[in-house]
Order: sequence, then C-alpha cells, then structure tokens
Amino acid sequence: MTTVVKIGGNVVDNPAALEKFCSDFAAMPGEKILVHGGGALASRLQKALGIEPRMIDGRRVTDAQTLKVVTMVYAGWCNKTIVSLLQARGCNAIGLSGPDASMITATRRPPVPAGDGSGALLDFGNVGDVGPESVNVIGLRAMLEAGLVPVFCAITHDGSGNLLNTNADSVACAISCAINAKLLYCFEKNGVLYDKFDEDSVIPELDPRSYAGLRAEGRIADGMIPKLDNAFKALSNGTLSVTIMNACNLPDESGTKLLL
Amino acid sequence: MTTVVKIGGNVVDNPAALEKFCSDFAAMPGEKILVHGGGALASRLQKALGIEPRMIDGRRVTDAQTLKVVTMVYAGWCNKTIVSLLQARGCNAIGLSGPDASMITATRRPPVPAGDGSGALLDFGNVGDVGPESVNVIGLRAMLEAGLVPVFCAITHDGSGNLLNTNADSVACAISCAINAKLLYCFEKNGVLYDKFDEDSVIPELDPRSYAGLRAEGRIADGMIPKLDNAFKALSNGTLSVTIMNACNLPDESGTKLLL
Repeated sequence: MTTVVKIGGNVVDNPAALEKFCSDFAAMPGEKILVHGGGALASRLQKALGIEPRMIDGRRVTDAQTLKVVTMVYAGWCNKTIVSLLQARGCNAIGLSGPDASMITATRRPPVPAGDGSGALLDFGNVGDVGPESVNVIGLRAMLEAGLVPVFCAITHDGSGNLLNTNADSVACAISCAINAKLLYCFEKNGVLYDKFDEDSVIPELDPRSYAGLRAEGRIADGMIPKLDNAFKALSNGTLSVTIMNACNLPDESGTKLLL
Repeated sequence: MTTVVKIGGNVVDNPAALEKFCSDFAAMPGEKILVHGGGALASRLQKALGIEPRMIDGRRVTDAQTLKVVTMVYAGWCNKTIVSLLQARGCNAIGLSGPDASMITATRRPPVPAGDGSGALLDFGNVGDVGPESVNVIGLRAMLEAGLVPVFCAITHDGSGNLLNTNADSVACAISCAINAKLLYCFEKNGVLYDKFDEDSVIPELDPRSYAGLRAEGRIADGMIPKLDNAFKALSNGTLSVTIMNACNLPDESGTKLLL
C-alpha cells in the first residue's frame, strides 16, 4: 500500500517544522508520495512585484504574471528545497509538477457565474481542476517501483503547453484515488476538533452521519467544510483511508480517521 | 548513442525561439537530454526584489536570497515552461534539477583569492562545481531506458540539504562525459566564427592545434575561450563529439565540430 502525505503552507513556511517533517517523512516505511502546498511566499513575491494577490473562496485568481510567480515558488523554491532536505535524509525523492512525465494533466477551469446576481462571469485564469483521471498512473507506479519518492507541487499542465495553478488538496486527493493509496491529510490542527479552541479535543473518527450532525451543531464550520467534503469524496472514489492530522504527528499518524 | 543539447538564455528568453526549438528538439530521434540556462529573468527578478546582481567572470555571486531567486527562475519557471512545451509536442520530458533522484551532486566552490593582490578571498556563495563524477549515471540511464527525456536546469545540491547554483555549460559537459554522449552546444552564434562579424564564416572543424592558432591570431577571444576550453575538456573526458552551434540549426546540426 502506498501512502500519500499532503502538507500545507504552515509546514513549508517554517524551516524548523519543515526539517522535522522531512526527517519524519524520510523515516516512514513503504512506498510514499508527498504533495505540498505553497505557503505565504507566493503572496509575498506577488506583492514585491506589484501584483495584488486576489483570492476567492481560498483560491488564487491566476493571471499570466501570477502563474509565473506560483510556478517559480511552488515548482522551484519549495519543491527543490523539500527534495534536497529529503535526499540529505536518505530518501530518494524526485520533485515533480504536472508536466513532468505528464504526471498530472488538468482541465482549465471555465469562467463561472460570479454569484453576485449581475450575470457577470468570474474567471480564475490559469487555474486547473483535477480528478483521478488526471493522473498518469502507469508513470507514477513505475517511479514508485524504481524506489523513487515522488514529491509533487500543485502546478499542473493542460497537455497543450500551458501550465495551470491547481489546489494542492485536490492534487493529493486525485493521486490517492488514482492509485488506491492511504491519504494523510496534514494541516495546522491536530485533527477535526470538537472544540476548535482545544487542540486536545480531536474527534478520533468521523463518518458522513456524524459529520452532518457536527456541521448542524456548528462544531465543524468554515475552511474545514471544503477540506472534509474533499476528503470524504476521495474516500468514496478509491482512496483506501483518510486521516486528517497535524504534520507533527506523522510518526504515530494520530488525528481524525474518516470512515464511510 | 544519447545526444545532450545545451541551450542558453538567448533561447529561453525568447518565446518564439523557444517554441521553435522545442518543436525541433521534440522531433530529434534517439535518446536525448536537454540542459538549459536561465536567461535574463533571474537578474530582472533580483532587481525587482532590490538585489543588485553581481557577476564575476560571467558567474553569478549567489548569496542566500539570490539562490532563492535562481532556483525559482531556473528550476521553476524556465524548467516547467520548457517541459510543458515539449509534452505538448509529444516528447515525454521530465524536468530535473540536481537534487531530484540525486541526479547531480555538486561541490560548493571554496572561496578563491580575489586576484587583486590584496590577499582577500572571493566567495561566490552558494555556487557548485561539477564533473562527470557528479552525475547519477544509473538513475539517468534508467530514465532514458524508460523513454523519458530529462530536461535539466543548472540548480544542483550538495547531498547535505543545500541547493547550489551551477553553470549550465558545466552541467551539460558533466552529463555528456558521464554517459559518453554526443554534445550539441548551442549558443547565440552559428558556430565558432572566423570573422566574428560574419555569421557565414563558421569554421567547420576545430582541433586543439587550429584552436591555439586562431587564439594567437586573436580570431577566437573573450567568452568563446572558456566555452571552447570546457568543450575540448569534455571531448577528452568521455564526450563522444561536440558541435558548437546555433539552436536554430538543430535539425541539420550544422556548426563547428571539435576534433581531438
């Protein structure tokens, strides 16, 4: 069984946390894949270049200049930093973005209604959407069989020569579905919390019924909802298991396990 | 026989030239590897971030901030743009930097005497030097045998978690020596010129003796000298053949052939 680990910007942005994570990840047994987000560097670099970052529902509107920035930051600095840290720890990592060996081919998101009643369309620009069918399963399995540890950033391509900015959570879900992997979905909290102010209140297991109940109570809200919706969808589309957890807890994989 | 093609910034910086080159490269038969330089974007980005580029003998002094910039530009934007253009042309390219599968492990250049008679040392910073021994030949051959087309930028690592900025000409030479490849060394001219103002005066063949003669006459000077020194060194260290040429002429490989 292959394990897909997703880490977010909170780990990527913090050199000490990233080094600890890389040590823990390198020590994990078995076939494994890392998918990383980008962190705050992309927005900082945009601002330094005079581009005002524009986010809608947590997704970055990606014009041509912004695509250049996110490709530089995610596929360049973040990806190669992580790969070099893993190599130094004896983990034979290889950094990949979607065009590399055509590992992930995304579909450019068409403009969507802006939802303000004006009939206007909202164009996210060079943003790609992915599903399990986006993944080059044969190529990915060949890399795993060769003993390589793929490290993916969330820059993909459309197969026609265009790069696309993609959500890293979606990339992790697409990969884990496509190869029937176990998914460790790391974020800044210890799991899904019963009391969002208490990191010790991790809900050990969550199924769609208890999830619906906790949403109705307002215990699960905001950014957790798309994350869990994505994760439950992955679980019913080929992903073997999902744990929502803190990257710090990689060695014991403690967190919230999702059940169907 | 494998062909290693090196392209420089003049191709990378020009979208039309890059598209033409990618079409020609994709159409090249046989096992092949591309090594690309970076172009002017790194210096532009440095300046936009308030870092004054500092070059000594054509080599970029690479402090921590500059390393971040060149890694973003070379391993991120340039590399992934080229890979996506090649994939769109049916070439199964995979972008690689040194840490990826530990393909190229460089040695950090120690400080050298500044050469101004003061006894001061000149530290290029995070700059790496490579030789044929730097190349992971087993890993590279496995990729070629899998039908992949490696596309290298000149960011390498030291194996201890540090990225290093490396000269792309040196990376191309190291790879072609390590795997006994044919090297097509592309730059902005049609070859080594007898009259530097006449692109039609390409010297068809050059051996160490004629090279020495043309240097003595002053017909070969300046930036051509380190390029040719490097190329002759490659030819006597395992590279099967070297052609100095314009990337435009990839289809017929016309240019200056080096002989020993």
